Amino acid sequence: MSLIQVINPNTSAAMTATIGAAARAVAAPGTEIVAVCPSEGVPSIEGHFDEAIAAVGVLEQVKRGKEQGVSGHIIACFGDPGLLAARELASGPVIGIAEAAMHTATLVATRFSIVTTLPRTLVIARHLLQQYGFSHHCAALHAIDLPVLALEDGSGVAQEKVRERCLQAKREDGSGAIVLGCGGMASLAQDLTKELGLPVIDGVSAAVKMVESLLALGFGTSKHGDLAYPIKKPLSAAFQHLN
Amino acid sequence: MSLIQVINPNTSAAMTATIGAAARAVAAPGTEIVAVCPSEGVPSIEGHFDEAIAAVGVLEQVKRGKEQGVSGHIIACFGDPGLLAARELASGPVIGIAEAAMHTATLVATRFSIVTTLPRTLVIARHLLQQYGFSHHCAALHAIDLPVLALEDGSGVAQEKVRERCLQAKREDGSGAIVLGCGGMASLAQDLTKELGLPVIDGVSAAVKMVESLLALGFGTSKHGDLAYPIKKPLSAAFQHLN
Amino acid sequence: MSLIQVINPNTSAAMTATIGAAARAVAAPGTEIVAVCPSEGVPSIEGHFDEAIAAVGVLEQVKRGKEQGVSGHIIACFGDPGLLAARELASGPVIGIAEAAMHTATLVATRFSIVTTLPRTLVIARHLLQQYGFSHHCAALHAIDLPVLALEDGSGVAQEKVRERCLQAKREDGSGAIVLGCGGMASLAQDLTKELGLPVIDGVSAAVKMVESLLALGFGTSKHGDLAYPIKKPLSAAFQHLN
Amino acid sequence: MSLIQVINPNTSAAMTATIGAAARAVAAPGTEIVAVCPSEGVPSIEGHFDEAIAAVGVLEQVKRGKEQGVSGHIIACFGDPGLLAARELASGPVIGIAEAAMHTATLVATRFSIVTTLPRTLVIARHLLQQYGFSHHCAALHAIDLPVLALEDGSGVAQEKVRERCLQAKREDGSGAIVLGCGGMASLAQDLTKELGLPVIDGVSAAVKMVESLLALGFGTSKHGDLAYPIKKPLSAAFQHLN
Amino acid sequence: MSLIQVINPNTSAAMTATIGAAARAVAAPGTEIVAVCPSEGVPSIEGHFDEAIAAVGVLEQVKRGKEQGVSGHIIACFGDPGLLAARELASGPVIGIAEAAMHTATLVATRFSIVTTLPRTLVIARHLLQQYGFSHHCAALHAIDLPVLALEDGSGVAQEKVRERCLQAKREDGSGAIVLGCGGMASLAQDLTKELGLPVIDGVSAAVKMVESLLALGFGTSKHGDLAYPIKKPLSAAFQHLN
Amino acid sequence: MSLIQVINPNTSAAMTATIGAAARAVAAPGTEIVAVCPSEGVPSIEGHFDEAIAAVGVLEQVKRGKEQGVSGHIIACFGDPGLLAARELASGPVIGIAEAAMHTATLVATRFSIVTTLPRTLVIARHLLQQYGFSHHCAALHAIDLPVLALEDGSGVAQEKVRERCLQAKREDGSGAIVLGCGGMASLAQDLTKELGLPVIDGVSAAVKMVESLLALGFGTSKHGDLAYPIKKPLSAAFQHLN
Repeated sequence: MSLIQVINPNTSAAMTATIGAAARAVAAPGTEIVAVCPSEGVPSIEGHFDEAIAAVGVLEQVKRGKEQGVSGHIIACFGDPGLLAARELASGPVIGIAEAAMHTATLVATRFSIVTTLPRTLVIARHLLQQYGFSHHCAALHAIDLPVLALEDGSGVAQEKVRERCLQAKREDGSGAIVLGCGGMASLAQDLTKELGLPVIDGVSAAVKMVESLLALGFGTSKHGDLAYPIKKPLSAAFQHLN
Repeated sequence: MSLIQVINPNTSAAMTATIGAAARAVAAPGTEIVAVCPSEGVPSIEGHFDEAIAAVGVLEQVKRGKEQGVSGHIIACFGDPGLLAARELASGPVIGIAEAAMHTATLVATRFSIVTTLPRTLVIARHLLQQYGFSHHCAALHAIDLPVLALEDGSGVAQEKVRERCLQAKREDGSGAIVLGCGGMASLAQDLTKELGLPVIDGVSAAVKMVESLLALGFGTSKHGDLAYPIKKPLSAAFQHLN
Repeated sequence: MSLIQVINPNTSAAMTATIGAAARAVAAPGTEIVAVCPSEGVPSIEGHFDEAIAAVGVLEQVKRGKEQGVSGHIIACFGDPGLLAARELASGPVIGIAEAAMHTATLVATRFSIVTTLPRTLVIARHLLQQYGFSHHCAALHAIDLPVLALEDGSGVAQEKVRERCLQAKREDGSGAIVLGCGGMASLAQDLTKELGLPVIDGVSAAVKMVESLLALGFGTSKHGDLAYPIKKPLSAAFQHLN
Repeated sequence: MSLIQVINPNTSAAMTATIGAAARAVAAPGTEIVAVCPSEGVPSIEGHFDEAIAAVGVLEQVKRGKEQGVSGHIIACFGDPGLLAARELASGPVIGIAEAAMHTATLVATRFSIVTTLPRTLVIARHLLQQYGFSHHCAALHAIDLPVLALEDGSGVAQEKVRERCLQAKREDGSGAIVLGCGGMASLAQDLTKELGLPVIDGVSAAVKMVESLLALGFGTSKHGDLAYPIKKPLSAAFQHLN
Repeated sequence: MSLIQVINPNTSAAMTATIGAAARAVAAPGTEIVAVCPSEGVPSIEGHFDEAIAAVGVLEQVKRGKEQGVSGHIIACFGDPGLLAARELASGPVIGIAEAAMHTATLVATRFSIVTTLPRTLVIARHLLQQYGFSHHCAALHAIDLPVLALEDGSGVAQEKVRERCLQAKREDGSGAIVLGCGGMASLAQDLTKELGLPVIDGVSAAVKMVESLLALGFGTSKHGDLAYPIKKPLSAAFQHLN
Repeated sequence: MSLIQVINPNTSAAMTATIGAAARAVAAPGTEIVAVCPSEGVPSIEGHFDEAIAAVGVLEQVKRGKEQGVSGHIIACFGDPGLLAARELASGPVIGIAEAAMHTATLVATRFSIVTTLPRTLVIARHLLQQYGFSHHCAALHAIDLPVLALEDGSGVAQEKVRERCLQAKREDGSGAIVLGCGGMASLAQDLTKELGLPVIDGVSAAVKMVESLLALGFGTSKHGDLAYPIKKPLSAAFQHLN
């Protein structure tokens, strides 16, 4: 029996629910999902400023998760905010959903496309592709030009735009798979996979399987070297809850 | 209930058994492992020539696996011989153990080292690192300078050399994880992980979890584009069993 | 007097003849060309599966060529199937036609375009560009979207499509040279070079000059290190002819 | 008359003073330096966890700086924590000291070495090299294996270690310049430059000149596209001071 | 008081004046600009041949500048002809305007576009991007398809074309900044920056601030290693003025 | 019957003779070699300053060669000075010896080492590796730390140092081939190839075969695009001989 903590780095309860549901839908019998979001932070993450704030919330939740005995952690925002910091703090595995989706895409196709929300977030995806080593595996990046929370407004407009961009990506990019570039798109992957006839990958579900896999293999985050626990030092008041 | 075919691309029955055991040791309750090797081929794989022959054996087994209704395939040789060809042929996921180990390493450490058998196989690992995008995540490559089958001679000499090289890699490379560069080393990973205090990664077990994960996510190999089924064409006698 | 073996990796006699003619057209006075194809294999090569089969045929022919005393070998399929395996087996030089055409292009222009057959083969060209180091020298890749054997159907349709794509590449890519991405296009290079007024490069003829050059310089494939002869080992029946 | 805000991202008053002095030492006549550190945060920055906390402090100070009418901002920690987030928030230029030192090094030498504090921070420098495009300009990275605050303990031990490593780098790396990899080393650059006879570069002073330069050229951070101001959204209590 | 020599590598007096004016417009109070061009050379630089000739003129002027006691040198042609040679010869800093503009662009935006003159010069820009490490920071390159001296014909046609291309780059490239790819465009940067609402960067002014900055930091070109003074040797008559 | 012009870019008559002899030793029956050096220039090339001067001499000789009806040109200095400029000027092929040797090495081995003269020239080789795409094919660079002309002093000391470094490279680098990094080492290649038992490659002879090959294929330098003839413009007196 293992407990996996899915951290929505923004404070949107609706998106936390969407993400939690996506995670539960693929969790193995022995896995329990706990979906959380920071107690303090931003309602949506659409840039580096938002990410910097969200990263602290991610750390807050990783710490809480450790105290609650969770076995592994997922950072459920496509920019993977705070990933390496969370890995330092955690003993178990920590997986970001951009990372999870990108890795997964390279296992089922030679090249993939990304469909995300606002154009200004594309630079974040580009930096992650470079850092993870996948720049040459990404054929194209697309933005629907709607904010993250449009995915939670109930109108279905954003969802339809995602669908249109996925169809366009299939027609034009020469990609074998599509990566959905936002945790809020998690619920769309399965239907789009069926409609398009190619893997449309949601990072939340992919990350759940990665954490389960690492746990089954007996691996947490390596504590030798770069990702060793943070050096203990006096944190000032606002951050003492992270110590 | 899913059936995963673990293909040892060489014809060594002993190594097939080692690999099958490593796979079974981590398989999920609902997973059945079938470990096979080609009916025809090379007893060990230590270069590009050996790989070219082994690739045909891999295809032979992938085809047989499909006929037997397996859900996914693993290519259990560190050079991932025939990987993209097997992906064309398969409908389910196909994972190579080099790929599996390298991906896994990047999830638990910022950089990893590789410990393999003969120096002449290092070039194969280097090419895979480049193709998969992980050149900059690999801190160093080490060869124990013993042939693959030394791992099966019962003397333990090769195993001790692997251990020594892992210790050296830990001391010198600044890596957070070590990747074992041969399917025949699969049984060493767990003990070395404990002794060294950092993830020592065997690709066989890692690949089992990756195939299970892709199956749970509902993904086979993408049949859109580059990895579509091979175009049907008349194969001559020696290869008709692949059609 | 030197004998160069041009291996068409597919089993099409017509294409073997086309390729042989292209090779003879540029061979130096002291060079004799022997154009062969595998006794067993695929009639055309349009993906990784086909390549894996073809690679064995290439090795079969390299071995036969050595027995017949040839001085060097050419692999006349644009994916260079089995190149490094053949280099292990051979003592003389072994050149692939993709390699030959790409190297040549970088000597006469700062960037080149590639025109090939089916879109699904583009990924193979892309991987070769990366492996050889020429990704940044390739401005664009084009596929005429016809199978390889359309080049041998006598209608001239495929040839006209190649011509149109070359003209388009000249207009749009900003390239100084065009590489023809299939051994079956060998006979087109000279006329297109004249019509377009820029180097249109066929890899077969380029490879002949490269092998002649290496022979004149006294170089075979280096047997020190990575490309040393395959380690002798018992091959099973189906592959014993390679030993 | 322009006001440049030098933000020490850690909360060490001693280091803030060191950094402020280094900045003032090179400031142009018309430049006033205000050296600050976050009101809340970590006393030293030695990993990604520390950086994540420090990034919030950087944003807090950038916001305060804007309110006080500063013209530009410097992030005076070698990992450039929060750089892109700060650029979104700022209207004027924002320069990180790692960025400043690395850019400067490439202008006076073909390759440079880095000398920093703890080995675990090397990964941060490596990621920055990759992101900024300078991986191939860095010949070697060295760590003195002492924590950041050892530079402020008054013993001079850390300073001597830095000196020794710089001498070693000069002897062994084939570099034309050395980059000091910690804001706390700012005061050492001038003497080491003289002793070693090659540019030993402190990022704090380099950053001051870069901000002055951008201001003189009339450039702030581009507000077109990726680095546009953060989208206004309700921040929760703990982060409202950033809004 | 420091003297900065701005070398227009072509022999056009009009362009030398344009460049000198652009340099003076941003020079700090303590900086005197001396704008020069070679006594012998080409009237405009539009290819590698022109650059090879111009490089000698650059060296001639660097030598003269040293004799006249200048503190630093600027090579005011977007291909940075002779940059590393000039650095060997000089003791002070030497900055090329392509280098200056590209570095500056990466400090204010995540990606930039380049607008230059003739398409045939794009390859030079591409090579510089690669050498400096900025290939991934450049979103697109544009050529107005007019020769360099069209910028000096008084008609304003070339200037209008530059403006149109900048507007197009803003609309289409997703860049946050634009780099002007010719010394003769120096006078356009300020107005275009205002009109477009994003940094339009002229390398001449950027280079002035870089040289001033290096001087203020006490750095000349490193004389340790690769950029040490040229080894003294007898030059033949035509080049003796360089000795 | 074709005439190939081998340009020694320095003015050393002894080295021109060495280079000419190396070229003639491998020239095909129908090839005549004319070995020349610039009328004005530097006696040896050991840095960027020397290269800038030499490039003009190369152009002078290319122009003269064209007037004399030569079919192709070789730039026989390991830095390939003036290569792209010469390609603009020439109609026939132009090959640099670094380029020739590096290309050749990648055809016979997976990785190669370079052995050159002074350490300060290593940066030139590194830049060429990057520009040509071969950085990842070069395992190591070595310098014997003697000036170029030591190869012509008759003592044999430099030659012995080259030999020692080649032996060291064979032992330590894991390379399958060695590239000699100076035109003045041309005469050593054959003996070292025999002694070491692996290809030791001299660029002069390699370049002869490349030019012969391009001529046999009917290719000159592409005049479409980047390498079109230089735009005619009035050159001042000192350079009029190049027009």
